[in-house]
Amino acid sequence: MSANPLDNKSQAWSALFSEPMSELVKRYTASVDFDQRLWRADIQGSLAHAEMLAAQGIIAAADLDAIRRGMAQIVEEIEGGRFEWKLELEDVHLNVEARLTQLVGDAGKRLHTGRSRNDQVATDVRLWLRDEIDGLATLFVELQRALVELAAGHTETVMPGFTHMQVAQPVSFAHHLLAYVEMFARDAERLADVRKRTNRLPLGAAALAGTSYPLDRERVARTLGFDGVCQNSLDAVSDRDFALEFCAFASIAMVHVSRLSEELVLWMSQNFGFIDLADRYCTGSSIMPQKRNPDVAELARGKSGRVVGHLMGLITLMKGQPLTYNKDNQEDKEPLFDTVDTLRDTLRILAEMVGGIRVKPEALERAARRGYATATDLADYLVKKGLPFRDAHEVVAHAVKVALGRGVDLSELTLAELQGFNAAVGEDVFEVLTLAGSLNARNVVGGTAPAQVRAQIERHRARLGA
Amino acid sequence: MSANPLDNKSQAWSALFSEPMSELVKRYTASVDFDQRLWRADIQGSLAHAEMLAAQGIIAAADLDAIRRGMAQIVEEIEGGRFEWKLELEDVHLNVEARLTQLVGDAGKRLHTGRSRNDQVATDVRLWLRDEIDGLATLFVELQRALVELAAGHTETVMPGFTHMQVAQPVSFAHHLLAYVEMFARDAERLADVRKRTNRLPLGAAALAGTSYPLDRERVARTLGFDGVCQNSLDAVSDRDFALEFCAFASIAMVHVSRLSEELVLWMSQNFGFIDLADRYCTGSSIMPQKRNPDVAELARGKSGRVVGHLMGLITLMKGQPLTYNKDNQEDKEPLFDTVDTLRDTLRILAEMVGGIRVKPEALERAARRGYATATDLADYLVKKGLPFRDAHEVVAHAVKVALGRGVDLSELTLAELQGFNAAVGEDVFEVLTLAGSLNARNVVGGTAPAQVRAQIERHRARLGA
Amino acid sequence: MSANPLDNKSQAWSALFSEPMSELVKRYTASVDFDQRLWRADIQGSLAHAEMLAAQGIIAAADLDAIRRGMAQIVEEIEGGRFEWKLELEDVHLNVEARLTQLVGDAGKRLHTGRSRNDQVATDVRLWLRDEIDGLATLFVELQRALVELAAGHTETVMPGFTHMQVAQPVSFAHHLLAYVEMFARDAERLADVRKRTNRLPLGAAALAGTSYPLDRERVARTLGFDGVCQNSLDAVSDRDFALEFCAFASIAMVHVSRLSEELVLWMSQNFGFIDLADRYCTGSSIMPQKRNPDVAELARGKSGRVVGHLMGLITLMKGQPLTYNKDNQEDKEPLFDTVDTLRDTLRILAEMVGGIRVKPEALERAARRGYATATDLADYLVKKGLPFRDAHEVVAHAVKVALGRGVDLSELTLAELQGFNAAVGEDVFEVLTLAGSLNARNVVGGTAPAQVRAQIERHRARLGA
Amino acid sequence: MSANPLDNKSQAWSALFSEPMSELVKRYTASVDFDQRLWRADIQGSLAHAEMLAAQGIIAAADLDAIRRGMAQIVEEIEGGRFEWKLELEDVHLNVEARLTQLVGDAGKRLHTGRSRNDQVATDVRLWLRDEIDGLATLFVELQRALVELAAGHTETVMPGFTHMQVAQPVSFAHHLLAYVEMFARDAERLADVRKRTNRLPLGAAALAGTSYPLDRERVARTLGFDGVCQNSLDAVSDRDFALEFCAFASIAMVHVSRLSEELVLWMSQNFGFIDLADRYCTGSSIMPQKRNPDVAELARGKSGRVVGHLMGLITLMKGQPLTYNKDNQEDKEPLFDTVDTLRDTLRILAEMVGGIRVKPEALERAARRGYATATDLADYLVKKGLPFRDAHEVVAHAVKVALGRGVDLSELTLAELQGFNAAVGEDVFEVLTLAGSLNARNVVGGTAPAQVRAQIERHRARLGA
Repeated sequence: MSANPLDNKSQAWSALFSEPMSELVKRYTASVDFDQRLWRADIQGSLAHAEMLAAQGIIAAADLDAIRRGMAQIVEEIEGGRFEWKLELEDVHLNVEARLTQLVGDAGKRLHTGRSRNDQVATDVRLWLRDEIDGLATLFVELQRALVELAAGHTETVMPGFTHMQVAQPVSFAHHLLAYVEMFARDAERLADVRKRTNRLPLGAAALAGTSYPLDRERVARTLGFDGVCQNSLDAVSDRDFALEFCAFASIAMVHVSRLSEELVLWMSQNFGFIDLADRYCTGSSIMPQKRNPDVAELARGKSGRVVGHLMGLITLMKGQPLTYNKDNQEDKEPLFDTVDTLRDTLRILAEMVGGIRVKPEALERAARRGYATATDLADYLVKKGLPFRDAHEVVAHAVKVALGRGVDLSELTLAELQGFNAAVGEDVFEVLTLAGSLNARNVVGGTAPAQVRAQIERHRARLGA
Repeated sequence: MSANPLDNKSQAWSALFSEPMSELVKRYTASVDFDQRLWRADIQGSLAHAEMLAAQGIIAAADLDAIRRGMAQIVEEIEGGRFEWKLELEDVHLNVEARLTQLVGDAGKRLHTGRSRNDQVATDVRLWLRDEIDGLATLFVELQRALVELAAGHTETVMPGFTHMQVAQPVSFAHHLLAYVEMFARDAERLADVRKRTNRLPLGAAALAGTSYPLDRERVARTLGFDGVCQNSLDAVSDRDFALEFCAFASIAMVHVSRLSEELVLWMSQNFGFIDLADRYCTGSSIMPQKRNPDVAELARGKSGRVVGHLMGLITLMKGQPLTYNKDNQEDKEPLFDTVDTLRDTLRILAEMVGGIRVKPEALERAARRGYATATDLADYLVKKGLPFRDAHEVVAHAVKVALGRGVDLSELTLAELQGFNAAVGEDVFEVLTLAGSLNARNVVGGTAPAQVRAQIERHRARLGA
Repeated sequence: MSANPLDNKSQAWSALFSEPMSELVKRYTASVDFDQRLWRADIQGSLAHAEMLAAQGIIAAADLDAIRRGMAQIVEEIEGGRFEWKLELEDVHLNVEARLTQLVGDAGKRLHTGRSRNDQVATDVRLWLRDEIDGLATLFVELQRALVELAAGHTETVMPGFTHMQVAQPVSFAHHLLAYVEMFARDAERLADVRKRTNRLPLGAAALAGTSYPLDRERVARTLGFDGVCQNSLDAVSDRDFALEFCAFASIAMVHVSRLSEELVLWMSQNFGFIDLADRYCTGSSIMPQKRNPDVAELARGKSGRVVGHLMGLITLMKGQPLTYNKDNQEDKEPLFDTVDTLRDTLRILAEMVGGIRVKPEALERAARRGYATATDLADYLVKKGLPFRDAHEVVAHAVKVALGRGVDLSELTLAELQGFNAAVGEDVFEVLTLAGSLNARNVVGGTAPAQVRAQIERHRARLGA
Repeated sequence: MSANPLDNKSQAWSALFSEPMSELVKRYTASVDFDQRLWRADIQGSLAHAEMLAAQGIIAAADLDAIRRGMAQIVEEIEGGRFEWKLELEDVHLNVEARLTQLVGDAGKRLHTGRSRNDQVATDVRLWLRDEIDGLATLFVELQRALVELAAGHTETVMPGFTHMQVAQPVSFAHHLLAYVEMFARDAERLADVRKRTNRLPLGAAALAGTSYPLDRERVARTLGFDGVCQNSLDAVSDRDFALEFCAFASIAMVHVSRLSEELVLWMSQNFGFIDLADRYCTGSSIMPQKRNPDVAELARGKSGRVVGHLMGLITLMKGQPLTYNKDNQEDKEPLFDTVDTLRDTLRILAEMVGGIRVKPEALERAARRGYATATDLADYLVKKGLPFRDAHEVVAHAVKVALGRGVDLSELTLAELQGFNAAVGEDVFEVLTLAGSLNARNVVGGTAPAQVRAQIERHRARLGA
């Protein structure tokens, strides 16, 4: 067995280099601190590559055996915390390969045949991300389920629906929660779309141009569960679309999280008092003894910034890059990793916390009684009596003005008073001015009528396999 | 026919308001300057809504006729440039509706039955965007075709493939161009995914809670060609995911444009001299008489910033918004419109300009001869002679160092000299050291060998219907 | 007088070009649609340049006279709306120059001596921006004054101070408003810093390298009111820092606007009911007759996204640009212009709207009574009686728990009950448990005690010259 | 000494809480992993606070002694790596305080008198950032010096100045480098401006409203070297402008870095070949033995994305936040920390690497001879002979066209040929057509003439104290 050139990296990169890398450069350019989390994907990819090399007769069966044996030991070492990661070996790939060569000699040095770190890292990241995507998909299901089940108990709990943060029309608390289910369902759709474009194999592109070895790329793709192979080697090593697209998906999901969190924070505030969160999701204050703060919701809202920042960072990174691989691309990993971590933790904790929400139906209903939430019902009532909508709208504006001046609700005006605004008003008007009447009336697909909302809950349950 | 309340908007919003809107507020909040471009979608949506209202017996057949007649005249007026857009009517919706009521009286005032501007504007934007998406899809096909056809003439035109902007390995110019075809093909995939989520009908959500009229939302969806209806009214009026997702798609596409443009600019530069652009795509200088500048490519590159900015603006806009509609959302339109315009113009001009590229094969080949592009081929050669890859890599590094010192290419060393680095070198080595030999050797799926590239071109032609 | 080459631009850029610019390219690259707003700065800069050219003997006095005469007429034409802007003349610079040459012949053609559009446009934008900065500085003063004067009437109006949107401690409404005065004061400081770096003269850099004419750049700088000249010609034509820095300043300012707007929207909401906005700053709903929406505040909040988007767009634009001028830079104008417009309109309307805020002191005080706002005061009371703070904190947490369970405030517990938590409690405890007592107690610089707040108001009035 | 309530945090936040924090929440909300780097600022701030408390008679002199003794030991423990950071104590503040109380008992519990973590953390971050700003200021000086000294050797080294990446006019390599000195000088100015607004003391704002203890905030400010105190307590605890402004400054600086890096990468490319970087700043390839890649420059360019992303993240974080402190703000630290780290490492490595640049004057001059760089000189020559500039421009365009067709430079045309384009041409024309002649001619302030560039170098040396 010959000496391992990787062992000499501390002296110089290769025979071509007259001096070792500056210490500062070593630290600036090394990625092993953060890319070591790819180790499992790296080994998985290497084993699939080696198996194909052997099947194609490019390396000997004995080499494959040696590589498998060496990799098995490396897995053990890493899992056991005994693997020594070396900064001077730059990244996860060279660390694993150098150790393999230490363990199994020339077979280890043959592993890199027909590939480059350029296609290797692209493969590793895609493999890793695909698995994370599958984990996230499950979390989206769990969060949706938690929201649906909380909703199921509140199809008739009335709350004020807001537009412009002004009381608009009565809606059910269940209906409000299901709006978020729609958002997270769309996120899950988008995630599935990202997966399609992530799950393609770059390996075989080698450094940039393909390789002169008779690789069977389709075989490697099958082994690793990829849907297909990247069809252009230059693109394969320089493409970071999957990272951009994932971060864009995650940013949209975090926007949804920020909206839900904003509402949870408001609802917990004394001025709303719509819900309470279980103590285990709240924190206190080091100075104010009475405080119970919804830290989790606030932090989740704040973390939207983090994820959006990563998206912006990645786009800036890729903008204007000529083909093919440039070292800039090493900067793709930390934002992608942190985006995955942030989204995972956030979805998990939200799903858990939603289960700990205590709803206060009386407070919700009380709030719905403020702000003339049934004014539109009165206008619709007049339309059914024959007025054009625009005229009915104006009649009701007059009625609200009077009621407002007297500090009473529309339902507290007398029939005679109401008829004073328009003669078409009859006894049946008081029916439409109740919260329940208003709710039940909106019995259109997607509307807030309890019957509709219950149907939606069943649809979601079926869809989510709950 | 009663008076039209919309005519009184200059006095006050409704009877509830004691004073007219401040002039400053009117200008600050009006959107008609930019949302009037939605007029066709607005009328299309109104007609589908009216037709359904009549079918459901909510308005009379005569009302529908009147609405149709009025709308036909409005279309004529707008197309003829005779429609008077009024700032005090705020937006495209009220402008059209007020004019309709002027023209057909009470029937016009009945049109708004069972809907609100909240679901109306969401419907308009989706309808408009869907049509733009279809137009963009065509432009992506055209740009890909232009690249494929330019590539078709250059499957054997050798150029240096770069990594880190350093000469890496020889590739064909066709192969390089096809990398961009892959990118734009992925963009087109993403665009189709955005379309799925855009093409759902919000109408029927009314202000936020649904409506008490017995609407047939599915019928309206069918009339307008939507794939289905939004299932939650609160979500329907507050959802801007389709705009976010579109801008994210567009940002990724513009990143690809910026990469291609960067390369065109470099290739046009005297230090590369790889291509020339037709005069009609170049501009001169007001001071330097010799200048021919690739303005279009530079501007296209720069416009990536614009689109990315719009994405970031929209995300910032939506972050932390409580349900449902808030006026903030009016700010969704200008960035979305400008993103569509920018992408459309850029794709069109690039598709045209690619046809005007004159390739300089000699310059490309000359550049490929600099930088020891076939060094990897020599290493692979040694591997095939039995050396482990890592050892072969080191042997070649030595050879390059010597050649570099003497200012010659590897192929200019003698056999004896090459054997001095490793005894396994034979006569056949000079074959692998040629550019053509290197190119042909990378005969793996996705590799740069002409045979592979030709196969890709045929695949693309079939796919693009060319 | 010879023919004007600019008139032939529709045929070809110059003799060097064999064909005219494609129509598509003409539209894609022209900037006259948006840069014509620079006309006044452009003429101002040209006149200063011409005056210096004449003073240096580079052009004749008669030429200067002709240029002045021509420019005077152009100013009249533009102000009178009679100037014909031509797309084929690309931009404001060539439009003005071509017209000048039409009007005054060769003297017009001599104007461009020793300059280029590269340094000309950089000068124009800086001149224009400097004037806008001065206008914005005034608006920041007005907005601060409006807030200070509103505050002046509410130094003793108690409201709940929030952290985590939970009631924390009582503060005065004045104190809360003054927090925003601090923010806008910092914005004004930053604006002044941006002005310093904007107000330097690029003219004289010519295309990129300086010029061979004996220009007196310092003279031009003095004429135009610049603080000095750019010291490196390559930097002068490629520097867009002032635009980046301005947009960064504006983004921070808009973050402040978004925070204030968020609060105004919440305070207007029925669940807070802290303030009312004058009708002239509110809008109604096309469907819900009872609505009065705080559109202006919502839109101002939303417009933060727009400005942030422009910042991100500009950064993306400049990232990785090699020296010197690249056409990408033309894309700097629209985001900068729109940022200025947005900030200007927003500051103006906020300043006006703040004057129309009606505060509801009872509602504020009522809210302050919820949430045990004086709990910290009780803890501080115990510390003054000798307990370590951490112990006092724990004692009060017990007291709040009991009060919460009984649905009463801490001040509603009896002395005996309070002593049950800690024996150090005396009669004087009830003093510290009142809102006014709590407010007055925080009599530290920057604290909420009315005395402190009044002092701040005086400081601001003096500073703002009110 | 009483028990330390902080020790019970694993059971519950305070007596008010009925259950301990969920494990998931604990990890999600804890910041000690990243904010422990603030420990030195935290202790420094605490000591200044304690010293003032004692001076004001709020705590006893013995308490101060105890706190000082305890803190001294904690410093030793942390520096010695023996301090045990506990996740359940959330952050650096509680970790330090809990340990202090363990060490010195009740005195430790008295430290928190009159302050809150809200003003404490704001103070810590500002203190920390101020010191980092001072470190960065030094690095900006070093980087500028390195560029100036490299420039000093190349005031007469001619290279092509580019606009649109097309050869424009000859400039000196020194002049080109000094353009970056201007950029970094502006960055340093901006940094100084950020420092002004960072260096104000929030301590004394307590939780949000100030405190009832008679603090002497000015004294603490003096002790800690702050320029003054924050004048509004609500603003003091919620203000993150200094972080936003710092990240905006850093983004602009990184844009400059990305531009310089882009040029270094291009100049190292075989197609330019303008410079070489020392081996210790280059890396090789795992597959291509001939590669020497400018990894550092590429990575520096890529890291601009990272910093811009942090800016975007922070803006998104702050957008729309109501007063005062919300937990979202905890997310300010990681982006700020990483921005500082990235900028620091990047400036340091660039300053070092610039010293390792080997310039290739022949290659630069050869490139300057391509592209008719002296065409403007010919036009200026004709202007001096009496032609209006626009006409001279057109004459030269004709000449360039002819020369281009024949593949020669303008200086290679005969006098007769040149006179064929315009009769005013004389013998002296060949002087202006040389590179040196062109360079020397641009002898205007900020121009590329060696005399001007040398003057700039002296100005920079004086300014930078070199």
